[in-house]
Amino acid sequence: MQYKEINPSPRMLMTPGPVEADPRVLRAMSAHILGQFDPEFTALMNETMEMERYVFQTKNRQTYVVDTTSRGGLETVLTGAICPGDKVLIPAFGRFGYLLAEILERCGADITLLEKEWGTVFDPQEIEDALKKDSYKAVACIHGETSTSMMQPLEELGEICERYGALLIVDAVATLGGVDVKVDDWKLSACISGTQKCISAPSGSALITYNQQIEDIVKARKRVEKGIRTSDDVDGGLVRIPSNYLDLGQLEDYWSPRRLNHHTEATSMQYAVHEALRCIVNETLEARFARHSLNDRALVAGLQAMGLTIFGDLKHKMPVVTAINIPDGADGKAIRGMMLDEFGIEIATSFGPLDGKILRIGNMGYSSQKRNILILLGALEAVMRRNGVKVSSGEAVAAAMDVYQEAENR
Amino acid sequence: MQYKEINPSPRMLMTPGPVEADPRVLRAMSAHILGQFDPEFTALMNETMEMERYVFQTKNRQTYVVDTTSRGGLETVLTGAICPGDKVLIPAFGRFGYLLAEILERCGADITLLEKEWGTVFDPQEIEDALKKDSYKAVACIHGETSTSMMQPLEELGEICERYGALLIVDAVATLGGVDVKVDDWKLSACISGTQKCISAPSGSALITYNQQIEDIVKARKRVEKGIRTSDDVDGGLVRIPSNYLDLGQLEDYWSPRRLNHHTEATSMQYAVHEALRCIVNETLEARFARHSLNDRALVAGLQAMGLTIFGDLKHKMPVVTAINIPDGADGKAIRGMMLDEFGIEIATSFGPLDGKILRIGNMGYSSQKRNILILLGALEAVMRRNGVKVSSGEAVAAAMDVYQEAENR
Repeated sequence: MQYKEINPSPRMLMTPGPVEADPRVLRAMSAHILGQFDPEFTALMNETMEMERYVFQTKNRQTYVVDTTSRGGLETVLTGAICPGDKVLIPAFGRFGYLLAEILERCGADITLLEKEWGTVFDPQEIEDALKKDSYKAVACIHGETSTSMMQPLEELGEICERYGALLIVDAVATLGGVDVKVDDWKLSACISGTQKCISAPSGSALITYNQQIEDIVKARKRVEKGIRTSDDVDGGLVRIPSNYLDLGQLEDYWSPRRLNHHTEATSMQYAVHEALRCIVNETLEARFARHSLNDRALVAGLQAMGLTIFGDLKHKMPVVTAINIPDGADGKAIRGMMLDEFGIEIATSFGPLDGKILRIGNMGYSSQKRNILILLGALEAVMRRNGVKVSSGEAVAAAMDVYQEAENR
Repeated sequence: MQYKEINPSPRMLMTPGPVEADPRVLRAMSAHILGQFDPEFTALMNETMEMERYVFQTKNRQTYVVDTTSRGGLETVLTGAICPGDKVLIPAFGRFGYLLAEILERCGADITLLEKEWGTVFDPQEIEDALKKDSYKAVACIHGETSTSMMQPLEELGEICERYGALLIVDAVATLGGVDVKVDDWKLSACISGTQKCISAPSGSALITYNQQIEDIVKARKRVEKGIRTSDDVDGGLVRIPSNYLDLGQLEDYWSPRRLNHHTEATSMQYAVHEALRCIVNETLEARFARHSLNDRALVAGLQAMGLTIFGDLKHKMPVVTAINIPDGADGKAIRGMMLDEFGIEIATSFGPLDGKILRIGNMGYSSQKRNILILLGALEAVMRRNGVKVSSGEAVAAAMDVYQEAENR
């Protein structure tokens, strides 16, 4: 057997994830391993919790990292907070809403789906109307639905859920670090994110935070493993969490000063998360959100100047993902293939009802850069022409440059 | 907030994991990100499967990586192969046997524990006797029990289980890549390992393999997610797997040529696993096992020459972990602390009944090196003296050097 070393071709990742990791993050991962209970390592974990609270805009004590991709983080929080039989309302407006339902179904939750056409979002009133009709333990909702590029307004939703006694559990996998996610101000009971999107680290870790209410539920579901249990460890009464690996109670104990042995922390991914959060702290959330927003405006202006149309309700488009309608007669797969093969630029396809109808362009984290936007627009124009699509020539890049120019002059 | 870059102090990791990652592995992780469906990336995944088959000594088609630490890999295989109500026999001879029970309990398996004093292993006959008494769906067993340093002989066990119609699922987290784990020859139905021990990559991925029998069970439990289901996807009859993230069926589809979207593959950890496996292929299993074995003989000779006693049944000691009895009156915590603080060398404590009674020394992967063994012995001698333990002076390193000398002269 003869295998070559890792040596990927140059790539610009303009998808909704994974996106380019910050080079500082990639370098941090090449540091040598520390033992999981080495005081130097547990000090890093504590710093990570602090920085994560800044990024989630929360004071929640339980704010830490799970050694899974974002999907595993979602399952960890959902199956920890929701017991079998609990009623959960899921306002679904794209693929990832159905994923929440899928995860909750398996843990025996009693699910009610509110469905909405892909490309739109819910009016908070619609969710309130549903809450009036029945009594729910929780509402589980996507913030940025990358499958459609739509972003659900959450400002009022926490308040509404609180009024009806329901927890609000939010998937901010695609938005955290790129747009405002105000966990405390918006009264989110829990929020989950990944690392491979606006956080700009590799996939493989999930960032989670949850409030005292959920901490209390978890406490009532705790049981310490036989191999390391002491006489102080009593059972809490509520039904046990179904998974050992994704057990919020055990993860809490591991991330607490007690440092109760559970899994072996993923050292290098912890280095990556620590460095990615440090990059955000140094840039500041304000500057980071402004950067993503400016690049989004330039991208949209460029695409429109090219003559392409943007999919969905523009008022609720995520600033970090843009979906374009594939022009009549054009082959989305051929366009994506040529972008990757000729230009080394990756853009994304879509799922389910939108498969073959839209292309999705990401604008996330380290990938959200002026030069990436300008290069992408020029390349896309050339590829569209090569695929027989009538687009204006030279207008896309010019329009984007105008947006940047205007922002600089302000 | 002011946080510093990742800059760990120098460390020699002589614990049973995590151990030092091969520097080539650490460098591979700093390569830039590829998209998860980029043909270059899926080609790497396929190579990883091939190399993993070499390391597991198997032809199993289902041989791939799970994006969790080893504990998550165990849960993934166990909850995929075992349905609620299935009878499982667990011969437990240390902490991690109880972990298998813990995981299986939560998925509703009907468990029978065979318990054995910590520091010993089972005679295969004892397991056969238990299989005679009742009908079991599976036997789940630890190969290398790091909590006690014992290694369960497995050569005959697969044959025995086959005779009684039971699957044999083996946790080789601590042994794979350091000693023989012959999945096909030993007739193991499934085998699970991690990356942070003898594989010498960071923690965060699990390596798994399982045979056609388990593949058939998984097939009968499959359901494709609503968001991406097609009319060809039918339900299989058996009860569904409890977790979405740890769903063997979905993971199979993701690692199959179909590449059905599930999680976002952990890019940099995949680079790490690919490079770690490549290092093993280049070294060859034979040379690697010989290296671990030689370093083990030198370590044991050194410890005994120092006047320390080895814990447990020496005939069944893992060559990659050695436990020493803490001498009367000595404080294990102080010894470990001084090793770390003064020498930057980490050795391990133990759990449960052995806590405070033994210290554990790892000899795994990249950490398994002549220089590490010699330096460790010299440091341990000094630390023992400093802690009031009467040990011979200079004999430990000399005895280890004799072992190396003898091996070279052969």
